[in-house]
Amino acid sequence: MLQSKLFSKILKGKSADVESVSHDLLTRAGFIDQLMAGVYTFLPLGLKVLQKIENIIRVEMQKAGGQEISMPALTPKENWLKTGRWENFDVLFKLKGAGDKDMALAPTHEEVVVPLAKKNVFSYKDLPFGLFQFQTKFRNELRAKSGILRTREFFMKDLYSFHATQEDLDKYYDKMIKAYFNIFKEAGIGKQTYKTFASGGTFSKTSDEFQTVTDAGEDVIYICKKCGTAINKEIKAENPTCPNCKGSEFEEKKAVEVGNTFKLGASFSVPFDFKFKDKDGTEKPVIMGCYGIGLSRLMGAIVEASHDEKGIIWPKSVAPFDVHLIAIEKTDKVKRAADKIYKDLSGDIEILYDEREAKTPGEKFAEADLIGIPLRVVVSEKTLKTNSVELKERAKSKAELVKLNRISKILKSNVK
Amino acid sequence: MLQSKLFSKILKGKSADVESVSHDLLTRAGFIDQLMAGVYTFLPLGLKVLQKIENIIRVEMQKAGGQEISMPALTPKENWLKTGRWENFDVLFKLKGAGDKDMALAPTHEEVVVPLAKKNVFSYKDLPFGLFQFQTKFRNELRAKSGILRTREFFMKDLYSFHATQEDLDKYYDKMIKAYFNIFKEAGIGKQTYKTFASGGTFSKTSDEFQTVTDAGEDVIYICKKCGTAINKEIKAENPTCPNCKGSEFEEKKAVEVGNTFKLGASFSVPFDFKFKDKDGTEKPVIMGCYGIGLSRLMGAIVEASHDEKGIIWPKSVAPFDVHLIAIEKTDKVKRAADKIYKDLSGDIEILYDEREAKTPGEKFAEADLIGIPLRVVVSEKTLKTNSVELKERAKSKAELVKLNRISKILKSNVK
Repeated sequence: MLQSKLFSKILKGKSADVESVSHDLLTRAGFIDQLMAGVYTFLPLGLKVLQKIENIIRVEMQKAGGQEISMPALTPKENWLKTGRWENFDVLFKLKGAGDKDMALAPTHEEVVVPLAKKNVFSYKDLPFGLFQFQTKFRNELRAKSGILRTREFFMKDLYSFHATQEDLDKYYDKMIKAYFNIFKEAGIGKQTYKTFASGGTFSKTSDEFQTVTDAGEDVIYICKKCGTAINKEIKAENPTCPNCKGSEFEEKKAVEVGNTFKLGASFSVPFDFKFKDKDGTEKPVIMGCYGIGLSRLMGAIVEASHDEKGIIWPKSVAPFDVHLIAIEKTDKVKRAADKIYKDLSGDIEILYDEREAKTPGEKFAEADLIGIPLRVVVSEKTLKTNSVELKERAKSKAELVKLNRISKILKSNVK
Repeated sequence: MLQSKLFSKILKGKSADVESVSHDLLTRAGFIDQLMAGVYTFLPLGLKVLQKIENIIRVEMQKAGGQEISMPALTPKENWLKTGRWENFDVLFKLKGAGDKDMALAPTHEEVVVPLAKKNVFSYKDLPFGLFQFQTKFRNELRAKSGILRTREFFMKDLYSFHATQEDLDKYYDKMIKAYFNIFKEAGIGKQTYKTFASGGTFSKTSDEFQTVTDAGEDVIYICKKCGTAINKEIKAENPTCPNCKGSEFEEKKAVEVGNTFKLGASFSVPFDFKFKDKDGTEKPVIMGCYGIGLSRLMGAIVEASHDEKGIIWPKSVAPFDVHLIAIEKTDKVKRAADKIYKDLSGDIEILYDEREAKTPGEKFAEADLIGIPLRVVVSEKTLKTNSVELKERAKSKAELVKLNRISKILKSNVK
C-alpha cells in the first residue's frame, strides 16, 4: 500500500510512559495505540502482524486435528460457582446483565467449553477431540504493564482436548508441545523460547510454560546447562535438579510467558459431572488438557527478541509487509521507476511504498528502520544512473545494487 | 473433513425454546449453541460460515479503501461522558475495573475511533480515510430473542470514515452503499435485502438501513411499488410518499436489519474537539460517516431467506463446505469409491465426508438436508453397478448420475 495513505503517524522520540522496548517501538512505529491502562487498539500495521501470527497458529492447531469454534466472552455466574472460581479467580471481571443477572467476562474458557463438550460426548467413541478458538480474553489485572506483554484485554488461542484415558491425554499433550515448538520457530522466536517445567496450580498436576527470554520479562526461569530445558522459580524452589536430566547447573534468565499447557485431568469434568461410557460399560470422568498462546503477548515477545537501536526487525513470517519500497527524490525518473516496481509486485507480494513527497531521505530511512520490514528497496537518481536500485535486508548493514530489470524477480523469489 | 470427527451432534426434532426458523435450524444442525439468553457459541460449522461472511465483507471494505484495525471492547467512562452516551445509551454494559475504574463494554466504537483518529489527523491532507474492524460488540438487550438475530454479544463489522467536507462524505457514502449491495448479493440475500430510508436519530441527519425481508424480522418496512426502495415505519409516519420517487403505494413486509449506514456529520467530532486545518488555514470539525454490518445476524438472515422444510440451503459463497459426500453402504466397494473421491478432492475443495457406519441412509440424507451444503454426492452399491455416483444440488429435487471417473472434475469446476 501507499505509505501516504497508511493510518498511523510515526511518533518522534521515545514515548512517554513506556515500560519495555516492545512497548516503545510498537507505539512509536504505529503498530498499537493505548486507550487506557492495559487496553490497546491494534492499528493497521499491528493487526497485520497479529493476523499472520493467528494464521501460523491456526495451521498448527488444524494439523493437530483441532476444530475451530468461537465461544462468547459473556458467561453466567453459575458456571464459575461450579468450579469455585467465581470467588477464587482473582482477575475475573464481573458485571450485571439485564434482570440483574451476574456474569463474568471470560479470562479462560473451561467454564464454557466443558458444558458444551458434555452435550456432545456420550461414549468412548466420541473421544478424543480438540476444540480451539481465537478469542479476546479479559483479565482485571491490578498492574497492567509493559505495553502488550500484560494487558487487561488480549487475544488468545486456547485449545481444550478431551480424552478417555490419561495415556491418551499424554500422547495428545506431546503432540501439542511439538506444535507449540513449530509455532514459536515459525514466528521467529524458536531459539529464545524454552519449554519450562511449572507447577500446575489448583487445577492441574502437570503444566508447562513456554518462556521467551527477554529483559522485559516479568518471570524468571532457570535453564539447565546440560539439556537446555528450563524450570520456573517455583519448581526450582521445590526441586533443585533438572526434572529432565537431573542436571544441577542452571542459567538464570528473565523471560515472558508466551504460552502454557496444562494436563487438567478430571479437575473440570468432575464439577460439571462430565462423564462418558467406557468400553466396559462403566461411566468415567472425561480427562482434559488445555493449551494457550497469547497472540498479542507473542507479538510483543517477538519485538523484544528481534530489534536493534534503530527499531524492530520483523521475522519474514510475521512482518506487516514483505518489502518496503522507498522513492528518494521527487523527480519523474525516480517516480516512474518506483511506480513500476510497485505495480509489478502488487498482488504477488505485500509491499509498503513510501512515495511521500514531504519527507526527507533521512526521515524515510529512519522510519523504515523503526517499522522493521525485512527487505528495503531504495530508488534514487544516483543508482538509476546505472539502471540499478538498492536492496537491503533490515537485519544486515550492507546494501547491494540490483539491476532494475531483475529486482521484481529477485524480490518475488526472496519472499516465497 | 470426516463427519464422524465433526464436533456437533445433530439434534432430533425441533429445539425447545426457539423463536425463529433460523434459530431452530442452526441449533438443530449444530451451527450454534446457546450458553445463556442472547449469548452463543459458534460451533465448527457455524464458525466456517461466519468466516466466509467475514471474508466477503473484508474484500469489499478493502476495495473501498478501508484499513483494518482492531479496537478494544473495554472503554473508559470518560469517553462516553463526552458524547452523553454514558447515561443515554440504554443497552450499555457497565463494569468496574481495577482501582474502581468505571468502564463500558463497547456496543459501537465512535467513542474509541474518534480520539484515535484525532491523534493522526492535522490537516486536510490527512483526509479522507476509512477505518474498519471485525469486533465483538456487547449490548445489554432486555429481550434477547430469535436466536442469533438479536443477541447480547455479537460479531460486527464497523467502518468509520473521516472527511473534510460534506460533499466528500456524500461521495464516500454512495461508494459504501454500493459495497453493501455487493456484500448482500455475494452472501446470497441480494434479492431480499432493501436499502431502507431511516431517520437518523440523535447523532445523524441521514441514515439507511439494510433490511432483509423475513417473517422472523422484528422490523416493518414499506417497499415502494414503483421504484423498489423501502422506508421504515418512522419515515412512513412522517412522510407518506417515497423519498426516492414520490410513489405512494407500498408493500408492507416484516424484515430484519442486517446493516446500517449513518452520515454522522460533526456529531462526534465536536464533543472530542476533533478538527483539521483546511486549505484556507481555518480549523474545521472533521465530518464523519459510519457503516455497520452484523455478521452473526446476517448469518441468521441468510438462513431465514434460504431454507425449506427439510433444512438450510446455503448459498455457495457462505456454505460451511462445498460438497457433502455420503457413503451409503458399509461395503468395501462403496468405501473404496467414496474414499477415492474424498482424496481426489481434498485440498481443492472443502468436503464433508459422511463415512459414519452407525447411521442409516435415511438418517444421513435427513442430516445432509438439515445442514444444507450446496452439493451432495451419494456413493452406493446400486449406482456403482454402472460406475456412477449420484450428484444432487441441495436446492433442487432431482439428482443426476455422474460417471465415477468424471465426478471429481465436475465438482471442481462447479465449485470454482
